[in-house]
Amino acid sequence: MSGPRLIGVDWGTSNLRVMRIAEGGAVLDSRSDPRGAGGLSRDQFRPVLEEVAGDWLSNGLPVIVGGMAGARGRWREMAYAPCPAGIQELARAVERPDDAAFVALIPGVAAYRDGRLHDVMRGEETQVMGLDAPSDAVVVAPGTHSKWIETQAGRIVGFRTFMTGELFGAIRKGTILGADMGEPGVDDDAFAAGVGRAFADPAITAVLFSVRIDGLAGRLTAGAAADYLSGLLIGAEVAAQSAMNDRPVVLIGAEALCHRYAAALAMGGFQDVRTADGAAATARGLWRIHEAASR
Amino acid sequence: MSGPRLIGVDWGTSNLRVMRIAEGGAVLDSRSDPRGAGGLSRDQFRPVLEEVAGDWLSNGLPVIVGGMAGARGRWREMAYAPCPAGIQELARAVERPDDAAFVALIPGVAAYRDGRLHDVMRGEETQVMGLDAPSDAVVVAPGTHSKWIETQAGRIVGFRTFMTGELFGAIRKGTILGADMGEPGVDDDAFAAGVGRAFADPAITAVLFSVRIDGLAGRLTAGAAADYLSGLLIGAEVAAQSAMNDRPVVLIGAEALCHRYAAALAMGGFQDVRTADGAAATARGLWRIHEAASR
Repeated sequence: MSGPRLIGVDWGTSNLRVMRIAEGGAVLDSRSDPRGAGGLSRDQFRPVLEEVAGDWLSNGLPVIVGGMAGARGRWREMAYAPCPAGIQELARAVERPDDAAFVALIPGVAAYRDGRLHDVMRGEETQVMGLDAPSDAVVVAPGTHSKWIETQAGRIVGFRTFMTGELFGAIRKGTILGADMGEPGVDDDAFAAGVGRAFADPAITAVLFSVRIDGLAGRLTAGAAADYLSGLLIGAEVAAQSAMNDRPVVLIGAEALCHRYAAALAMGGFQDVRTADGAAATARGLWRIHEAASR
Repeated sequence: MSGPRLIGVDWGTSNLRVMRIAEGGAVLDSRSDPRGAGGLSRDQFRPVLEEVAGDWLSNGLPVIVGGMAGARGRWREMAYAPCPAGIQELARAVERPDDAAFVALIPGVAAYRDGRLHDVMRGEETQVMGLDAPSDAVVVAPGTHSKWIETQAGRIVGFRTFMTGELFGAIRKGTILGADMGEPGVDDDAFAAGVGRAFADPAITAVLFSVRIDGLAGRLTAGAAADYLSGLLIGAEVAAQSAMNDRPVVLIGAEALCHRYAAALAMGGFQDVRTADGAAATARGLWRIHEAASR
């Protein structure tokens, strides 16, 4: 049985995950901690990592870190690798923080359009590197900032960020639509109605008001309103990307959210939609980038 | 000189305005109070009105109330008058609260599409009745819930609500875009850049992320970010209504906001845009509906 060969770290904005990874990328064991990169200053990263996984580090294993540790003001600001970016490009760009030479940081990826910075990611690139996705696929990573990532031969050639998850939260908390609104995930029909409504009209800043109108008209219960709102926002995202529906889609993310996206993608005419295990993809991506960087 | 003939009340969600109105609709004097209809229960309306303007009421003048006092759970729930709705239809539909027979409440207006409730307003209908707008005009009332109201021969024949103002606030307060963001109203170029960006791409939930990207790229300062965001949201609204740009537009609302909308409308090819005094329009609308209801 193969033992641990790598300490892999996925340092998100609001969560930290440290894994012991075997040859090939399998996760042997993992630990989570709520000290995400968003709340840490430069000199807190090494102590937090040692606190969470000091016993693992003491064995002299190499450490590779993906995610937000390379963002501005965090452990070490890493320039974004420009598209197209694959395992080789990311491996060549890893850098080591001044206070921890045993750690390799993976950069994020930037998309340019007409020579101008058009979009950025930090973290999803590592997941994409861990997928065994078909060529010319679209990887959809739903979440706070939902990403649609185009790949060719395993490299990221372009991508776009939709603020779907964050808008959902801000609208629920900060507008009249959120009054009395319950949790999402209870009413699939209301979700589908929202998706359909968003498909029918691109004016999402007006279509959102239908949450209130349908409530007034008695067509939408308070219990179903969160699902309808979720459908409106995910529907608007899928509608904007509908030209891609002739390509295979790989969904990575939380299971319940991927289930919703799969439903909306099917309504949008996407024929070939599969779901991948995001945590496993992250670990394999960390392994592959580490391996390429070690050669 | 003509004395007061009517007490006109504009009871908004977060503000109350009571006016003494002369023959024809001129405002002789007015008082404001922060006790908007949104925070009052049924039995608080009469006491608040008497506290703010009891001395005026004691003269036996008729009282007419527009706005949110007729909303569900407020003074008396008033059904919405369906489109098309003009002065006659609104006047016929006024009702009197059980505890104040001297008060006439003006209903809101509802738009239907395919027999289904499509949109509602409470308050803007009274302003529209007070305009001396051209026939077949579009009245744009920007604000928390921005309204585009189509009129024919002085009647409201259809309208649509955009959540532009409320989304602006929720995005500023509740998303990563709002971090370090200043106040809007300082950078016209950033505003125009936002409008242009929204015109170029209908996927507003993705386009919003450009606030962050342009900041990262050094193209957008923190001080200009609020104006750019304002441009994105107003631009998305104007773009969605661009098919109306062959009609005259009358803007009613706060002066600075109308100025911004006028700039965005010009960028969207609207040729005939004028601005009306919203407070004067409200008073004239109250007078005209009162006069029609008294016949």
